[in-house]
Amino acid sequence: MAKQIYIAVVGLGGVGKAFLSQLEFLRQRLAQQSPAIDLRLILARRSQKQLFNSNWEHLDINTVSAQLDKNGTPPPPFNETFGQLARAPGRVVLVDNTSDVGLASLYPMVLQRGISVVTPNKKAFSDRYELWDSIFKSAANGSGSASNGYVFHESTVGAGLPVLSSLKELVETGDEVTKIEGVFSGTMSFLFNSFQPLGGGGGKFAAEVKKAKELGYTEPDPRDDLNGLDVARKLTILARIAGLPVESPTSFPVQSLIPKELESCSSGDEFMEKLAQFDSQMETIKEDATNEGKVVRFVGSIDVPSKQVKVGLEKFDASHPIAALKGSDNIISFYTKRYGSNPLIIQGAGAGGDVTAMGVTGDLIKVIRLLQ
Amino acid sequence: MAKQIYIAVVGLGGVGKAFLSQLEFLRQRLAQQSPAIDLRLILARRSQKQLFNSNWEHLDINTVSAQLDKNGTPPPPFNETFGQLARAPGRVVLVDNTSDVGLASLYPMVLQRGISVVTPNKKAFSDRYELWDSIFKSAANGSGSASNGYVFHESTVGAGLPVLSSLKELVETGDEVTKIEGVFSGTMSFLFNSFQPLGGGGGKFAAEVKKAKELGYTEPDPRDDLNGLDVARKLTILARIAGLPVESPTSFPVQSLIPKELESCSSGDEFMEKLAQFDSQMETIKEDATNEGKVVRFVGSIDVPSKQVKVGLEKFDASHPIAALKGSDNIISFYTKRYGSNPLIIQGAGAGGDVTAMGVTGDLIKVIRLLQ
Repeated sequence: MAKQIYIAVVGLGGVGKAFLSQLEFLRQRLAQQSPAIDLRLILARRSQKQLFNSNWEHLDINTVSAQLDKNGTPPPPFNETFGQLARAPGRVVLVDNTSDVGLASLYPMVLQRGISVVTPNKKAFSDRYELWDSIFKSAANGSGSASNGYVFHESTVGAGLPVLSSLKELVETGDEVTKIEGVFSGTMSFLFNSFQPLGGGGGKFAAEVKKAKELGYTEPDPRDDLNGLDVARKLTILARIAGLPVESPTSFPVQSLIPKELESCSSGDEFMEKLAQFDSQMETIKEDATNEGKVVRFVGSIDVPSKQVKVGLEKFDASHPIAALKGSDNIISFYTKRYGSNPLIIQGAGAGGDVTAMGVTGDLIKVIRLLQ
Repeated sequence: MAKQIYIAVVGLGGVGKAFLSQLEFLRQRLAQQSPAIDLRLILARRSQKQLFNSNWEHLDINTVSAQLDKNGTPPPPFNETFGQLARAPGRVVLVDNTSDVGLASLYPMVLQRGISVVTPNKKAFSDRYELWDSIFKSAANGSGSASNGYVFHESTVGAGLPVLSSLKELVETGDEVTKIEGVFSGTMSFLFNSFQPLGGGGGKFAAEVKKAKELGYTEPDPRDDLNGLDVARKLTILARIAGLPVESPTSFPVQSLIPKELESCSSGDEFMEKLAQFDSQMETIKEDATNEGKVVRFVGSIDVPSKQVKVGLEKFDASHPIAALKGSDNIISFYTKRYGSNPLIIQGAGAGGDVTAMGVTGDLIKVIRLLQ
């Protein structure tokens, strides 16, 4: 008889929708190749509505969004939902496509109830260290009981790129990671590849921010990218996997590209209007780099032996892989004892619904294999 | 009580020795973090000698090489050894660090007996398609029974770089891989990065081959690199994972860099002596590339929709990531529907005992998790 694995999806934005489409693909593939596994979507939940199949039957993925609009009910508190899921007649996987730290704070309890978690929720793994510690003390693939749930979060850094799995493998096989360096934000990548392209050119900083916003590369309020916190969260996660118990994304130096004078702006619109007044600051930085034959990029780095984590602008030679990055690509370099002077490099799109969902679906496949 | 997992290692050359050292690291880490798992090395075997602990106790890894020299006995046929291993009082993992296709042809039987296989043995997965098919029909992570062994072979392409796991994830999550392209040989990478470095220069071809041989970058007989077969084997493996049932590494166009006139050389030494007579052929290729502002590199590529696999020299713009490669690094680019115009790129050392063993140890960790 087929073994049921129950999938509960929370968050149905861009990533959530792309995940559902990949889940449908996976169900069909498993039906052909591994008929012993029966994946069932039993919960679809967004902020105001949810559909929960308390008879543990599969919700049709192709129509679930429409059904949710039409027949969704106001969702109960998460605690209540997880209590219901724990009573499923088989193993449950929670797919958290939100960025809700409140939900993340429930992961330890969720894992202890035998429910696995796969998620691109950065906040869950970059908030206070105590939450990180508590999550991995509760996970079957941490130091929790073997009957607890598994947790995977590949998409929290570099979306679907195999960044965390590669770092974990370096650490678990005994390599010494000495330095991690890269461009970890698609927004910052696009912005600086336009502001100072290899070979010269590029517009004024405020104009490039405006262009990036118009093309949909920034958050609705670009200050949420320019403050560097998104990159700091990713560095926090990488540093912790590399063995540094970083307390939070604000416990190391993070350079904000929001001019001091504009920190008090009451809205993103006001900020965007005034940003051009500070173009000369960024222009000086660009000229300094040009004079040295370099380009400026917004990067994060972790020096493991000295335990130094930092986020901000750095200058790179034209021949450096970080300088040659294109579009909104991420690049992550792992310098290790085994890899010597040439690092292990992973590069490609690090944002977007489809590639982020791919990391989540890849994690789900790992959990399914472990639960099989 | 701790669960024993029994490790049988065949092949104790550069990769085998590096693997043993990583296995010792892994045992110590597991003893601290997952005391429920007890890894035991029970067999160490090379061509002329073996040590087999038929009482299923752990062989001391630090002294196993010396013990093997001193107390090793002539090994019985593999069939007999696998019959003994199948009687272990727990799950067994065979670590095949050889490049023996005869041993590989026994994998299906080994897997059917519940023994898992982790290996960097390229020949096992690039020989006739029937063997590939038979291996995956026998594996628990193929279409074999859940009680059969698991098989992983990350190090057969790009050594420890996460090449196969990334391609599998793209395929399993429903992305459409359109093209795979890269430099898959550390030898060819080093040779062409010296023969025609970015920015000009470089020596004559025969002199660069001689230098590469002296520095230990080539096989003892450099013809084993220059014939392109090593790259063709890797392309065969990638193509099969991408869904193309390539029959063998000789069933698609492979450009050999051995001049026709030298195919009949009776020894590597004779070949090396005469190679310089053909420098003008390679010089013409280099000049043609230079005139177009390009460099020539030895690459493999797979066009998935048209099912075309090929291996040979290609010209690349200076701005192409393949042109910018350094030392003996590999680079592998996956062009897919989700990643769009900028591919997912993985780059770094693709040869060497430590990084190859890392891929094997990483695979062993996956098997341990699945057997747990």
